[in-house]
Amino acid sequence: MSKNERVFYIGRFQPYHNGHQSVLLDIGKEADEIVIGIGSAQLSHEPDNPFTAGERVLMITRALKELVCPFYVIPIEDIKRNALWVTHVRSMSPPFDLVHSGNPLVVRLFKEAGIAVHSPAMYERDTHSGTEIRSRMVTGRSWQDLVPPEVYQVIMELDGERRVRALAEDDGAGCRI
Amino acid sequence: MSKNERVFYIGRFQPYHNGHQSVLLDIGKEADEIVIGIGSAQLSHEPDNPFTAGERVLMITRALKELVCPFYVIPIEDIKRNALWVTHVRSMSPPFDLVHSGNPLVVRLFKEAGIAVHSPAMYERDTHSGTEIRSRMVTGRSWQDLVPPEVYQVIMELDGERRVRALAEDDGAGCRI
Amino acid sequence: MSKNERVFYIGRFQPYHNGHQSVLLDIGKEADEIVIGIGSAQLSHEPDNPFTAGERVLMITRALKELVCPFYVIPIEDIKRNALWVTHVRSMSPPFDLVHSGNPLVVRLFKEAGIAVHSPAMYERDTHSGTEIRSRMVTGRSWQDLVPPEVYQVIMELDGERRVRALAEDDGAGCRI
Amino acid sequence: MSKNERVFYIGRFQPYHNGHQSVLLDIGKEADEIVIGIGSAQLSHEPDNPFTAGERVLMITRALKELVCPFYVIPIEDIKRNALWVTHVRSMSPPFDLVHSGNPLVVRLFKEAGIAVHSPAMYERDTHSGTEIRSRMVTGRSWQDLVPPEVYQVIMELDGERRVRALAEDDGAGCRI
Amino acid sequence: MSKNERVFYIGRFQPYHNGHQSVLLDIGKEADEIVIGIGSAQLSHEPDNPFTAGERVLMITRALKELVCPFYVIPIEDIKRNALWVTHVRSMSPPFDLVHSGNPLVVRLFKEAGIAVHSPAMYERDTHSGTEIRSRMVTGRSWQDLVPPEVYQVIMELDGERRVRALAEDDGAGCRI
Amino acid sequence: MSKNERVFYIGRFQPYHNGHQSVLLDIGKEADEIVIGIGSAQLSHEPDNPFTAGERVLMITRALKELVCPFYVIPIEDIKRNALWVTHVRSMSPPFDLVHSGNPLVVRLFKEAGIAVHSPAMYERDTHSGTEIRSRMVTGRSWQDLVPPEVYQVIMELDGERRVRALAEDDGAGCRI
Repeated sequence: MSKNERVFYIGRFQPYHNGHQSVLLDIGKEADEIVIGIGSAQLSHEPDNPFTAGERVLMITRALKELVCPFYVIPIEDIKRNALWVTHVRSMSPPFDLVHSGNPLVVRLFKEAGIAVHSPAMYERDTHSGTEIRSRMVTGRSWQDLVPPEVYQVIMELDGERRVRALAEDDGAGCRI
Repeated sequence: MSKNERVFYIGRFQPYHNGHQSVLLDIGKEADEIVIGIGSAQLSHEPDNPFTAGERVLMITRALKELVCPFYVIPIEDIKRNALWVTHVRSMSPPFDLVHSGNPLVVRLFKEAGIAVHSPAMYERDTHSGTEIRSRMVTGRSWQDLVPPEVYQVIMELDGERRVRALAEDDGAGCRI
Repeated sequence: MSKNERVFYIGRFQPYHNGHQSVLLDIGKEADEIVIGIGSAQLSHEPDNPFTAGERVLMITRALKELVCPFYVIPIEDIKRNALWVTHVRSMSPPFDLVHSGNPLVVRLFKEAGIAVHSPAMYERDTHSGTEIRSRMVTGRSWQDLVPPEVYQVIMELDGERRVRALAEDDGAGCRI
Repeated sequence: MSKNERVFYIGRFQPYHNGHQSVLLDIGKEADEIVIGIGSAQLSHEPDNPFTAGERVLMITRALKELVCPFYVIPIEDIKRNALWVTHVRSMSPPFDLVHSGNPLVVRLFKEAGIAVHSPAMYERDTHSGTEIRSRMVTGRSWQDLVPPEVYQVIMELDGERRVRALAEDDGAGCRI
Repeated sequence: MSKNERVFYIGRFQPYHNGHQSVLLDIGKEADEIVIGIGSAQLSHEPDNPFTAGERVLMITRALKELVCPFYVIPIEDIKRNALWVTHVRSMSPPFDLVHSGNPLVVRLFKEAGIAVHSPAMYERDTHSGTEIRSRMVTGRSWQDLVPPEVYQVIMELDGERRVRALAEDDGAGCRI
Repeated sequence: MSKNERVFYIGRFQPYHNGHQSVLLDIGKEADEIVIGIGSAQLSHEPDNPFTAGERVLMITRALKELVCPFYVIPIEDIKRNALWVTHVRSMSPPFDLVHSGNPLVVRLFKEAGIAVHSPAMYERDTHSGTEIRSRMVTGRSWQDLVPPEVYQVIMELDGERRVRALAEDDGAGCRI
């Protein structure tokens, strides 16, 4: 990655955690600007997607407040048609030159569209941290060390731990919504 | 629950059974009016959702024909965005003061919206009865005792047992629809 | 129309008025049961569609409380594909034998589907009453005489006149929503 | 346009008429293969869109039965997001090298996507023929000369003239569907 | 099945293989015309649905180029409401007299709609061939013998094997799209 | 409006112009933070909605780069159900205390939801500026003075004037898309 570029990075950020933070701080050292896409923006109040897009915007913006590199935070609703997803993302985002992603599907779709992709080595661990954090919330173990302090505060303010726990009780046998 | 209230109760009613009937007869002793929401109204002809909304309206209305308390039966299509679901339900229903539900997700969403919720103790068994009834239909065991007689008649009239059995044959390997 | 039939009648009921009431009282003299479909159920807070489906359910149910003939009130969301609309309606409604409608498109679609349709002579005036009532609400003229007294009361309770007036101020130049 | 190319052509074909036929016969002299997209495939039974996608497939295929150049007829549902439309079309169609269109929006969207477009001079008249034919059907004037004989036969078989006339009676004051 | 009929056949064709080819060649001996519906047309770039509708149109058309019986290839997007699916399919297809399917859900839905269905004995093996082919692509085993030579060529041209392999790497832990 | 508040402001920004800029600079003097919602985010390449959400994000962010008050720019897709719109907006945005809007529909919907609204006097002129700017682009008159210099530069870079002109040529007689 050379200087003078706008870089696109996407995640679900359920919640935003230290793995995301570490990747974005690294990208910020090289990029001119960063576009942070919030995937599955329309989902919330599900066991795997507890937080709304607005809550995730807040977590990210606060955690990155010291980042020198300018960044955009863009909620991206699912389109459920993989062939259209790259075009959908591009229509919602300022133009970008490079995608930073380790997600195999994201990588494949951008590459088929002829867009440059940089794949970090540490991807897998990051992904699993979201699952780990939600699992700790449900079982009452400590998760504070896995997220930036600003994210911890946001989740406390919106009583997020209790929400995650309540969502986990749902056994799926009742109402689809 | 005090008198002079309109109470909201929601289920998928696949099919409507004695557990639902018992809860609604109880609610009817206290409430002024009941709104019965039919969840996942758009679904039918699936192994877990064999009956159309219209068929479920018929089952409920006939089974409750002796209920003194006035009631509304409202099909509610899924909206697939939990953050909007309560507002969606309220736009489709006459205004209500109290929600009667044991479903953890339903309880959580109404509480976050500041609406009073009453949770019965017997919820879990009721939910599982739908699964039990469909399973008995597939395997040819008797299920007549688990539903009000009017519901049994409706299902017989529309040849529902055969439909449930046919849907169970689908192994999901073929066409999505 | 012979006895022993379930009759389907649909309108947008924005609001429910004396024209609808008169047609339904007439149908009630002949039919065994009536299914009243609330069209465009998902729309509200628009100049031509001010009331939610739930509010319209309330108007209709209260205005028809003396009707001896049993009736169902079913919100029907638009499907925006005319070729599917009849099938959509039938999946949301208990089965019916006869459609009562003067709307040319509704008549055409049910006839193409092989369903019997009865077209009243007085249709056109009824349709236009909704427009007339909303227009009177906007300009502050009296509209109370055009609706059943129960409907007047419902609209007063939900401050509907003020809502209709506020919606009329929108010049369409601003936000689509 | 050089030889050895697959050419894409799109219309709503409500109905398919001599203008379309003339353009396609011309394209067929030069192209290797033609992809004919049926736009707004999901619409039918509307005054401006009376025929289903399936009926339009039938018209086109029969009218072009003598065409030597191989062709594909592909229904394309609207996506209602212009920024995604070209990608949507491409996902539904075999790959093509050239678009043949005189519609300014279609031309613009394909050009922004970097796809070659050939614009015929006679576009405007063709577009207006659909309107003219539907108008003649409504008012009972002769329209047979404006369409290929196979299209006339298809429309007669499905009683299309009567449908167009019935749809024209709708004044839009009644149910949205 | 008697002569002089248009027969409907649907599959997902991910990819089109020898099982499909064999069934269609058999149907072609009896039918006047065949309508081949491509199910889940909107899906692609998923492990179980790697190819776009357009790519599948190409596979089928090329593989059937020697078929004497005229045929239509129609992409059919999912409608996700089983009660509407038959009507949806019929609106997208030229009218047909007979459905040829072994899929239990497809059979059930067409039968409930009063449409004749012919169920072949060899259905199950065909369905599983798609899974087998995709699995062989992922693990690098030979699959060329399971598809018509034209299909093999199409998949080679669009580098489909690599796409299927890339999609298989996705563990579902990352972005929904 | 007192200090220590997050203020929500929404527009379509087609394009962002001096009227918007003036309102936002004023809000910035009082608010702690501003959330700027981009309405109809999914629309672009239409005569009245020429620019994508991403392009509008770029215009706004650049034009406000000197604003001291922190702000969020959030694309908001239409939901087409006015009763759900406020809840939809809130799920996409960080929580806010006050809405700043002169649009009568927006004001009405937030007030019905119990959210404080401040209505500026200068609203109408601002709305009409977008129309005026697009009209000048089509007819080749100067519009540079009506937008912040950063917006002029963005539109020049993406050749926006030519796009607006091309979209205006569409007479609506051709393809819906």
